Amino acid sequence: MSTIKKTKKKINVAILIVGNEILSGRTQDLNVSFISDWLNMNCGISVEEVRIIPDIEKKIIINILDLSKRFNYVFTTGGIGPTHDDITSLSVSKAFKIKYNFNKEAYSILENYYGKKNFNDARKKMAKMPKGSKLIYNPSSAAPGFIIKNILCLPGVPSILKSMMPNLINFLIKGLKVESRTISLQTVESKIADHLTKLQKKYLKKIDIGSYPFFRMGKVGVSVVLRTTSKKLLKKCEIEFLKIIRQEKIKHNNK
Amino acid sequence: MSTIKKTKKKINVAILIVGNEILSGRTQDLNVSFISDWLNMNCGISVEEVRIIPDIEKKIIINILDLSKRFNYVFTTGGIGPTHDDITSLSVSKAFKIKYNFNKEAYSILENYYGKKNFNDARKKMAKMPKGSKLIYNPSSAAPGFIIKNILCLPGVPSILKSMMPNLINFLIKGLKVESRTISLQTVESKIADHLTKLQKKYLKKIDIGSYPFFRMGKVGVSVVLRTTSKKLLKKCEIEFLKIIRQEKIKHNNK
Repeated sequence: MSTIKKTKKKINVAILIVGNEILSGRTQDLNVSFISDWLNMNCGISVEEVRIIPDIEKKIIINILDLSKRFNYVFTTGGIGPTHDDITSLSVSKAFKIKYNFNKEAYSILENYYGKKNFNDARKKMAKMPKGSKLIYNPSSAAPGFIIKNILCLPGVPSILKSMMPNLINFLIKGLKVESRTISLQTVESKIADHLTKLQKKYLKKIDIGSYPFFRMGKVGVSVVLRTTSKKLLKKCEIEFLKIIRQEKIKHNNK
Repeated sequence: MSTIKKTKKKINVAILIVGNEILSGRTQDLNVSFISDWLNMNCGISVEEVRIIPDIEKKIIINILDLSKRFNYVFTTGGIGPTHDDITSLSVSKAFKIKYNFNKEAYSILENYYGKKNFNDARKKMAKMPKGSKLIYNPSSAAPGFIIKNILCLPGVPSILKSMMPNLINFLIKGLKVESRTISLQTVESKIADHLTKLQKKYLKKIDIGSYPFFRMGKVGVSVVLRTTSKKLLKKCEIEFLKIIRQEKIKHNNK
């Protein structure tokens, strides 16, 4: 088990989704929102870019090399299963020119899970990964993910991915958690835009202020989201914003 | 109205999602699957890359320039509303060094919609876009999207985006529709992996064969998806695959 490290710096992540099924519209991605929320809550890490690309070796390699240079960590989802279209592990090996071979521990985990008799070539393939990888254990269906350099390779099936995330606590350097406050207003964006612009200018680079229109049960509204790593600043900005809202006589959900 | 063009070449698209709310996990993206499905069904166009990036001007510019070179069209979603964090239109203008100013038609549409008295600066901002843009009309909430060069800018709210898509029929060059066939099997991937590998080798670059495990109501299964622009080849490959499945005595959903 690795020692848990903490830093006051911002730690950022890119997610690389390898999956024709997501690009074609056949499957709705559910992993981005889960990973992003989990990383912020548990590790104080922000997802700052997501890419969805097809199952094409060349594209995986280009994106792995590009993203691994620009982000502290790169999470991949998809492409580590037993079939011909699962090429993430091999592509990551090729990207870094690292040998792609059987990981002894993964081989043994899978052999135990399936039994010697049923451990066919397709299943054995799931034990192949870049040499020197550390395993991310899989409590759902045995086949592990892995970590090599700053790349963390996870499966695409959301329920399996979710069950594997707690493993990562021991590997990731922790950053500062982003605290957020959502205030939902019974108004339209264009009525509060000027106030938000002034508020954002005042807290420039300290608080990220977002404005998101919504339609719920036939009613329109706006959710204003304040995000920052400082609880103190968050409270200050929230009080200021609520004062504006009261002056403008706009109804909101704040208690 | 533009003349509709058709080509036998593959027409590809990248989607650039501008949105802190998607990256933070607060909001689940629903636009990728809708756009992708709609483009294939109506225009024979494939989405081949998706990027999700934060509301940061520099990042929007870099991605617009990169993607516009590599794809026939780039769709952007989000960032064309009235608030300070809506910076897609300005960023696209800057990317191509095109003047960012009021589009007369958009101005008039919005002025009519809100009424002269209520047409404040925030609302006027939604009429600003790169000079020379063509409008994508918005039957839901008036504020139009726009097309400049090969970039199509749409809003982020899924219901509004959906209502605007039919406009695009007149702008896009049509490609070849991808036909697909999904066969759901009562088995696990590792039992059919070898067969799929052989089949994929046989139809290399002609049919894209995908294998996707699923868990429904406590049962495991695999969906095998065949995708190609040739109906004839699709039928041939399907018959061949069903023969294998019968030989292996695997239950499936095919009628």
